[in-house]
Amino acid sequence: MTRGAPAATATKSTAYLLSNVAKILAVDRSKEIEDAVSILTAAKKLFVYGVGRSGLAARAFAMRMVQLGLDCYFIGETITPVVGDGDAVLIVSNTGSTMSAIQVANIARRVGAKVISVTGHRTSKLAHASNVVLLIQSNGDASQARLAPLGTLFEAATVLLLDGLVAQVMERLGQTEADMRGRHAIMV
Amino acid sequence: MTRGAPAATATKSTAYLLSNVAKILAVDRSKEIEDAVSILTAAKKLFVYGVGRSGLAARAFAMRMVQLGLDCYFIGETITPVVGDGDAVLIVSNTGSTMSAIQVANIARRVGAKVISVTGHRTSKLAHASNVVLLIQSNGDASQARLAPLGTLFEAATVLLLDGLVAQVMERLGQTEADMRGRHAIMV
Amino acid sequence: MTRGAPAATATKSTAYLLSNVAKILAVDRSKEIEDAVSILTAAKKLFVYGVGRSGLAARAFAMRMVQLGLDCYFIGETITPVVGDGDAVLIVSNTGSTMSAIQVANIARRVGAKVISVTGHRTSKLAHASNVVLLIQSNGDASQARLAPLGTLFEAATVLLLDGLVAQVMERLGQTEADMRGRHAIMV
Amino acid sequence: MTRGAPAATATKSTAYLLSNVAKILAVDRSKEIEDAVSILTAAKKLFVYGVGRSGLAARAFAMRMVQLGLDCYFIGETITPVVGDGDAVLIVSNTGSTMSAIQVANIARRVGAKVISVTGHRTSKLAHASNVVLLIQSNGDASQARLAPLGTLFEAATVLLLDGLVAQVMERLGQTEADMRGRHAIMV
Repeated sequence: MTRGAPAATATKSTAYLLSNVAKILAVDRSKEIEDAVSILTAAKKLFVYGVGRSGLAARAFAMRMVQLGLDCYFIGETITPVVGDGDAVLIVSNTGSTMSAIQVANIARRVGAKVISVTGHRTSKLAHASNVVLLIQSNGDASQARLAPLGTLFEAATVLLLDGLVAQVMERLGQTEADMRGRHAIMV
Repeated sequence: MTRGAPAATATKSTAYLLSNVAKILAVDRSKEIEDAVSILTAAKKLFVYGVGRSGLAARAFAMRMVQLGLDCYFIGETITPVVGDGDAVLIVSNTGSTMSAIQVANIARRVGAKVISVTGHRTSKLAHASNVVLLIQSNGDASQARLAPLGTLFEAATVLLLDGLVAQVMERLGQTEADMRGRHAIMV
Repeated sequence: MTRGAPAATATKSTAYLLSNVAKILAVDRSKEIEDAVSILTAAKKLFVYGVGRSGLAARAFAMRMVQLGLDCYFIGETITPVVGDGDAVLIVSNTGSTMSAIQVANIARRVGAKVISVTGHRTSKLAHASNVVLLIQSNGDASQARLAPLGTLFEAATVLLLDGLVAQVMERLGQTEADMRGRHAIMV
Repeated sequence: MTRGAPAATATKSTAYLLSNVAKILAVDRSKEIEDAVSILTAAKKLFVYGVGRSGLAARAFAMRMVQLGLDCYFIGETITPVVGDGDAVLIVSNTGSTMSAIQVANIARRVGAKVISVTGHRTSKLAHASNVVLLIQSNGDASQARLAPLGTLFEAATVLLLDGLVAQVMERLGQTEADMRGRHAIMV
């Protein structure tokens, strides 16, 4: 790296992420988002699931659902009640082929729960098992491998898409930021 | 919500996030990023820490460090060796006043480890205890409470800033996407 | 190790644990267990907390509470609603001086929640902040360092004490094993 | 419950656990323990895995391995390098039929890693995929459902069996309690 351009790759990487995430999110998903919000706000209990960095994006979403007053759980953590009829499960998986993600979706459907998936592949087994698919197609160009390696683009787009979903659920439920702050967990 | 504008808030929220994160990340941090990359690549062991959604952003960063071949741990999980002289700790905290985050920083400094913080407050106790501060000032306007409630803007900016840092560390270490894929954990 | 006595230390260690845990659990705690069960079954929401191996024992207890139909959360995981008046918190800490454990206890008391602690030290800050103290005194002899190093004895005794508490809560609530099985989380 | 016998079920439950765990652990496993210790101390990296309460017992074991100076990881947490040739994986599953546990075992064997399982079923798929099986047969009597519901007996026996394994690994490596304390993670 030249002294004249310190940290140039970091800057290029964030710019690359911002412009590509903007493109991905510009796709019209209003129908799917409407459906997802209806499912999320009508469910008795919510569950979220994901593995690796996808699981982190899912957890970030789950925390907001709890702050919005919904009963929401992350599958695989200590505290997870059983999924049942009338519940909803949101699953994040880029490939849509992670075995545990497919299994969670199948179990959920079998017991009568609705499944919303955030995935990069419309023809994946996960997508097929879902009631609503939020598709995040993140095919980058030649510089992706260097500026946004592996699933980085999918994950960043998922974080922002789900934060958009939070705002929509918040509006639907008539919740304010102050309401959410009042439900904020102890942070020690 | 009118039928003509379904999911309008979700779309506005992601647009709001994208434009505000772009503004936040446009601030020149090349000196701090250079310093952070030098510390991260010179450290014997890396540790990351954060609570709540900040902790999730920190975990996403830690996963990439492991895929880049570095010894990196998340403080508080099952597997965390002791922090020592020559190690580095990256801590994410918007307020910079979360007690455990300050404690981790102080313990790290005491044993001779370097501390990098990602925080929203330059005058916080966490910032004071840090060798390098990556400042994320996310003061939004009137619509923030509705479109990006609580720390959403800080967290989204942190995710993208840290992904930029990943690309820079990757370049510094001469690592490729294929190298990283080869170190990808089992996902079941 | 001689060939005639393979794995002798493992066998001695488990025997040592069994006899010492039996001694520890022989102490009469019926008053404290009664009080704990009353608090746990009367609380609106339950929270458990602990760090390290103590936290694992606490999590194992929390899973059973959920299977018994109670609203129970582990503080610090993704899904943790705010602690409030009428709730109860069970905290496990051998020393009783882990800073976050004390902080959780103090916050809980301030908002009107009851605190049950499992600790090795009756005069600790955690014990002082508790409504009920389940004391586990695990002062071993000379062979402890070799057969049950660090907090092993405390942790093993806590696991069994809390499983005893589970059985008592189960009886109080009139729950059966089949009821619990019906609430068992998805395991994928 | 009569006033004369407060907390009687808790006391009976711990006594029941102690006597049954003692019976389970009295079975001679010296050959299997020897083999397990040899694998654990010869492996390049160690991995542990388990779901639910079995996963907690596995985590408690992993923490001790780290304190003994071994490179040990819990599969599924933030920080998990890839499993490779020369590594070892310890998996805890009562049924031996949890899908992800079997998958972890199969992947591990395929890449040349050794598998140690702690399971209740010798003929399970997990046992078949293992190099060493530590069998915990916990068939209780009529009172088990009330005093040690679901997998309680298996889990308690596993905790103590694995603590015995810790003592044996400790001896094999010539480690002291002070060595372990020196590697104890930050607890905040």
